[in-house]
Amino acid sequence: MTPASTPSPETSAASAAETSAGRRGRRGGGRAARQATRAQQGGASAAFITRKIPTFDPFDEEQLATIEANAETVLADIGIEFRDDPETLDIWRAAGAKIDGQRVRFEKGMLREIIQNSAPKQFTQYARNPARSVEIGGPHCVMVPAYGPPFIRSQAEGRRYATIEDFRNFVKLAYLSPGLHHSGGTLCEPVDLPVNKRHLDMVYSHIRYSDKPFMGSVTAPERAEDTVEICKRVFGADFVDQNCVVINLINANSPMVWDDTMLGALKVYARNNQATVISPFILAGAMSPVTVAGTLAQILAEAMSGVALTQLVRPGAPVVFGTFASSISMQSGAPTFGTPEPTLVLYGAAQLARRLGVPFRSGGGLCASKVPDAQAAYEAANTLQNAALAGVNFMLHAAGWLEGGLAMGYEKFVMDADQCAMIARLLEGPDLSENGQGLDALREVGPGAHFLGCAHTQANFEDAFYRSPLADNNSFEQWQADGAKDISARAAESVANLLASYEAPAIPVEVDEAVRDFVAQRKAATPDSNV
Amino acid sequence: MTPASTPSPETSAASAAETSAGRRGRRGGGRAARQATRAQQGGASAAFITRKIPTFDPFDEEQLATIEANAETVLADIGIEFRDDPETLDIWRAAGAKIDGQRVRFEKGMLREIIQNSAPKQFTQYARNPARSVEIGGPHCVMVPAYGPPFIRSQAEGRRYATIEDFRNFVKLAYLSPGLHHSGGTLCEPVDLPVNKRHLDMVYSHIRYSDKPFMGSVTAPERAEDTVEICKRVFGADFVDQNCVVINLINANSPMVWDDTMLGALKVYARNNQATVISPFILAGAMSPVTVAGTLAQILAEAMSGVALTQLVRPGAPVVFGTFASSISMQSGAPTFGTPEPTLVLYGAAQLARRLGVPFRSGGGLCASKVPDAQAAYEAANTLQNAALAGVNFMLHAAGWLEGGLAMGYEKFVMDADQCAMIARLLEGPDLSENGQGLDALREVGPGAHFLGCAHTQANFEDAFYRSPLADNNSFEQWQADGAKDISARAAESVANLLASYEAPAIPVEVDEAVRDFVAQRKAATPDSNV
Repeated sequence: MTPASTPSPETSAASAAETSAGRRGRRGGGRAARQATRAQQGGASAAFITRKIPTFDPFDEEQLATIEANAETVLADIGIEFRDDPETLDIWRAAGAKIDGQRVRFEKGMLREIIQNSAPKQFTQYARNPARSVEIGGPHCVMVPAYGPPFIRSQAEGRRYATIEDFRNFVKLAYLSPGLHHSGGTLCEPVDLPVNKRHLDMVYSHIRYSDKPFMGSVTAPERAEDTVEICKRVFGADFVDQNCVVINLINANSPMVWDDTMLGALKVYARNNQATVISPFILAGAMSPVTVAGTLAQILAEAMSGVALTQLVRPGAPVVFGTFASSISMQSGAPTFGTPEPTLVLYGAAQLARRLGVPFRSGGGLCASKVPDAQAAYEAANTLQNAALAGVNFMLHAAGWLEGGLAMGYEKFVMDADQCAMIARLLEGPDLSENGQGLDALREVGPGAHFLGCAHTQANFEDAFYRSPLADNNSFEQWQADGAKDISARAAESVANLLASYEAPAIPVEVDEAVRDFVAQRKAATPDSNV
Repeated sequence: MTPASTPSPETSAASAAETSAGRRGRRGGGRAARQATRAQQGGASAAFITRKIPTFDPFDEEQLATIEANAETVLADIGIEFRDDPETLDIWRAAGAKIDGQRVRFEKGMLREIIQNSAPKQFTQYARNPARSVEIGGPHCVMVPAYGPPFIRSQAEGRRYATIEDFRNFVKLAYLSPGLHHSGGTLCEPVDLPVNKRHLDMVYSHIRYSDKPFMGSVTAPERAEDTVEICKRVFGADFVDQNCVVINLINANSPMVWDDTMLGALKVYARNNQATVISPFILAGAMSPVTVAGTLAQILAEAMSGVALTQLVRPGAPVVFGTFASSISMQSGAPTFGTPEPTLVLYGAAQLARRLGVPFRSGGGLCASKVPDAQAAYEAANTLQNAALAGVNFMLHAAGWLEGGLAMGYEKFVMDADQCAMIARLLEGPDLSENGQGLDALREVGPGAHFLGCAHTQANFEDAFYRSPLADNNSFEQWQADGAKDISARAAESVANLLASYEAPAIPVEVDEAVRDFVAQRKAATPDSNV
């Protein structure tokens, strides 16, 4: 598969044509109406999931209390390092923490109190299309594509470095996927663009090629500032100051270290009232103890230190307790996914976050496989199913992830998005209405007959069962007649069809121009650099 | 892959040699000791799982009570048909049920009372090797291979009809799989043997090539009698009368029908105090209402009617509430697997079985895919993970299932068995011992260092994380250097290696001879028939 070619945002003629078309659509309603119809055709097209079944909470009170006590011990006795960032040390000093060089120690209970005083339990991330805004926290779950891979993989091209064209393709695929509620962030690294400027094209692409909410740049404080400036041009400066319009991934340098890059981005976003996802990034056994309970104590300590910092920077700033926890192969040191110990870490972290009272982020379709084979799917499903039951609110890496996050897979992306849509149905729970109980059907049909033609089935069959666009459920003979394709081959066709069918959502031309002007000005102001 | 050739049980010389070798092993301990070592090398080699985390119970009290009331309505108003079996109608008449032709109706509460008066909450199925006996019910989970496929699929041969050699191969693979606790039943249909005699070779193969517990024949009452007779020769007649040594799958002819074949087998096993798995077999939308709650009411009604019958035949006979519930594609009528609605049915049925107070059976690695691709794995993992959390006690079809049960996959079998071993680790839950808490490691390592060399990691690394024998977690470059194989290719190699390494477990020569004599006598007594 060669993804359909798309105009670069730098190509004014093409972009202007699209923008103009979008504007006509908004006025005339023709294109917008078609788009709305299409979005609903996908099935589970709600803007986010609201679960109606409980979370699964396998840790008991005593286990959780022990882990919480151990996290407080880590914070009080060992402490956390905040590196190369005197301003952050000043913030901690003013808050009453003990500073020893770059090491900061916290009295037991101090961070929990800071967090519970002001961090919101739930917040709205606004999308430029209000119908796409998402609720983060509480009973809600937002499915977000994978983040960060420098490579892409497709059936046609194999594995190669990603480009901005790939990036735009994944924005479009996320936009077209009813199972995904978010445009994500660094869907892949556009390595064809200079490091110090690619964030401008990434953020612009999210805004221009989708109307779902998105993630900002964190690779330098000034790139975070650029992200906020772009958001002001889309949403208005006052709105941005009072509402969350961008969410941003702040990874700890585990164990127990925050570096100046992440701290710089954290402070920019918190000051601007934008959301941060404070995520210990852990390969257990290398970056944390080799046990579930030890890893959880460290995760809680690290997460609390970052979450509390956001609240000191700006009380009430939206923030998410994140975790990315995998284990390593103790033979090779390689990260492993979908295995039972990280699943237990995930369940424990979700319970700890709920007790802390903040939204929770964890991973979706993680895997170590290099290709979208059965290994990839077992591992991805093991992660996604358990994360959904655990009550993850912000499911990052829900689609596309291959090779431990080094590659974004075109076919894997649409396969995972299908799984995400299934999760939405699962979390809806059972329907116990009179229609859901179906007693009339049982009375009408009776022993030994079949239900296919009965009135209840006829009234309900269209929505009764989730329909996968990728699974082949036909007979062996029919499957052979259709070319004996495996799901990767069918997914490759789906990717090509989706990209060919893509139409950009409408955007006000003045908004598009304002963002493009800002991007052009920022690009002109600095020489290209790959640092 | 061509599975390693194995001697036929009919080949006296080869079998006698194996038996003799086995016997020496039992006396001298050499082979048995090597086997014990090998069994432990596999990792999760306990005879069955004892869960230490709770079940996930998404249905609330009101929902369950509604479904239970609806099931009683089905039993009282609509009734269940027991076809072509006057003896069973007499049993119901004597118990006070209302008989109308072949339709039997039950006063509300009647079946629940019969069941709760005598059905055991948990029982032991004895294996001929006592170390392999399994507990069925309570907090336990027994992983059982797939049952019933007429075809096999392997990477080398594609899809073809199964033979008795395939059957023996799957007995051996189950024996060698630490994740599987049971030898299963009809691992595949040996279509090269006459229909009326193949059960003799299947049961003999389970006994001769494995020492794990197994399932008996249900395709005719006399074949059930043969199974019991063989068991008496292995375990002794008195032991069989007082203990469960074989477990047997009794499927309803849903909706709301039991046929004479299944009823005949049910009565043979119950009279002999052997376990039955009473399983409504449902493709929702065709064989039950098109809704979750409607399907559950029907499942509960059908299961209670079968479970109660076993208790009328012999109070206290071991019995399992089974369910096989899938949905159908409302476009094509084809069964679908791993989708959200059957997952909800599974959770609900597990909760209903626990409230009834009997062990629960449901499916493991189900899928509709024709090949062991990502579709197969997503669907299998979705089924297996949720079934494990739901608290399934007897996980039938846990390994090998392809194509909606029409094909047993060699590669799929070992992939699924790997997943079953992971489930065992997941259900163990977290270790909150002092060692599990790992505070010493956190103190020793501190911020910014790594845990690979610390004392706690060194002391725990061997057992810390589940090690998959099939997943490739290496770098892309290493994976390429290793031949860029997908998991199917690695699984094919694993199958060949396992079968090549297989050594039969020891069996007392007099037991083997007694069984072989019975089998030979039964074969000689009747002409071959394919009915």
